[in-house]
Amino acid sequence: MCQLLGMNCNTPTDICFSFEGFRARGGRTDQHSDGWGIAFFEAGGSRLFLDDRASADSPIADLVRRYPIRSLNVIAHIRKATHGLVALRNTHPFQRELWGRYWVFAHNGELQDFVPTSDGRFRPVGDTDSEAAFCHLLNQLQTAFPAAPPSSVALLQHLREISREIARHGMFNFLLSDGELLFAHCASDLHYTLRRAPFTSAHLIDEDVSVDFSELTGSDDRVAVIATQPLTDNEAWTRMAAGELLAFHQGRPLARS
Amino acid sequence: MCQLLGMNCNTPTDICFSFEGFRARGGRTDQHSDGWGIAFFEAGGSRLFLDDRASADSPIADLVRRYPIRSLNVIAHIRKATHGLVALRNTHPFQRELWGRYWVFAHNGELQDFVPTSDGRFRPVGDTDSEAAFCHLLNQLQTAFPAAPPSSVALLQHLREISREIARHGMFNFLLSDGELLFAHCASDLHYTLRRAPFTSAHLIDEDVSVDFSELTGSDDRVAVIATQPLTDNEAWTRMAAGELLAFHQGRPLARS
Repeated sequence: MCQLLGMNCNTPTDICFSFEGFRARGGRTDQHSDGWGIAFFEAGGSRLFLDDRASADSPIADLVRRYPIRSLNVIAHIRKATHGLVALRNTHPFQRELWGRYWVFAHNGELQDFVPTSDGRFRPVGDTDSEAAFCHLLNQLQTAFPAAPPSSVALLQHLREISREIARHGMFNFLLSDGELLFAHCASDLHYTLRRAPFTSAHLIDEDVSVDFSELTGSDDRVAVIATQPLTDNEAWTRMAAGELLAFHQGRPLARS
Repeated sequence: MCQLLGMNCNTPTDICFSFEGFRARGGRTDQHSDGWGIAFFEAGGSRLFLDDRASADSPIADLVRRYPIRSLNVIAHIRKATHGLVALRNTHPFQRELWGRYWVFAHNGELQDFVPTSDGRFRPVGDTDSEAAFCHLLNQLQTAFPAAPPSSVALLQHLREISREIARHGMFNFLLSDGELLFAHCASDLHYTLRRAPFTSAHLIDEDVSVDFSELTGSDDRVAVIATQPLTDNEAWTRMAAGELLAFHQGRPLARS
């Protein structure tokens, strides 16, 4: 199994603090040492760092921890290989372009007997069930809305149907973003915390590190952090229900339609 | 204008030496300081580093210089903005997936009145003429060969036609790779050097740095380096002709069909 980390904000925010605890699970405090990756959206553009080494001792992870990239949407993943070799082509997050937007996807879980048609517009490069699911999901979206994206609400509804169908094949926890919305689908384990004023201090579970957000944030800032398991031991984390799909926008979940 | 750097090899090779001279042109020995990027293919996978800061003082460029990533195909670009703001979404190289392979593209030049149809499968995310040309090129390839890629020779012939058409709109120097072949199209400035046994020492033009390849390479290694302007002052560089498109494979150009 793998671990997921996502961040969705209303003002560009760096993920250095949360990433510090998360990366420790890639080979130090936990066993997810078969590669890792992180994608930052910046005004439509996307910056994707991938490494097939364990995040705990990756020079690229050192860079990400030290270089504060401010972003509205971030998706990170540390991998424990189940399907597919340890190789860059199998390292999450995966990225494609649809409707002139980049889409980024990371998956935690395992799908059985999931063999979508391979002649669609989006095709996997690597060998994972995860990338096959991502391509299938984009092929379905593109078939349903060939010319342009629908409204956020229609997108969410459509993704619920596709996710439910794919989830019949196994455990399908995923994070997905187009740089505007961050979608989180829970099959077994996914938690989120919402940071907003009044900001307080947070303390990591995996490292003895605290940060006082009141010194770093503006009073209107809102940040949602989504992770397989809670990253801090003194904040309120909401456990998502199995089968639940949420869309985060500007630091909070969209109301359920 | 921008500068291009490409490498195509028959054995995974790091580009640290060539990159050291090249990055100096991004804000130190030359004026191309509006961002930079580099893509490494590794067994089908691709690792793309992008930064909208000048390469000469980019922490990501420091990482790339220090972290020897071995690859068969590399494309790098330093940008002097002409079309489009300085922003991550406008930073080359650009990447898309076609036929289950990643394609990476970087452009040097400027296109005038180039407005391809925007309803194709591949659409630009940013505002550059370059990304529009890349998307048009992939749309044309996908229309011509919808199910699967053709032979290398057929691909090269088809790319010659598309490049000739796009080049009517202005200066269209580009590098393009699918991880197997590296295509180089010259409009005004593109040079290449072929390194093979017996390897000797090479000395950079932009930095007082030499490397003795005979200590680092095997006797069967072949490496082609392609750059807007020669990077070394003691190797033979071949100037490509205007309108010429070459496909490099395993460290040498494919014979002209």
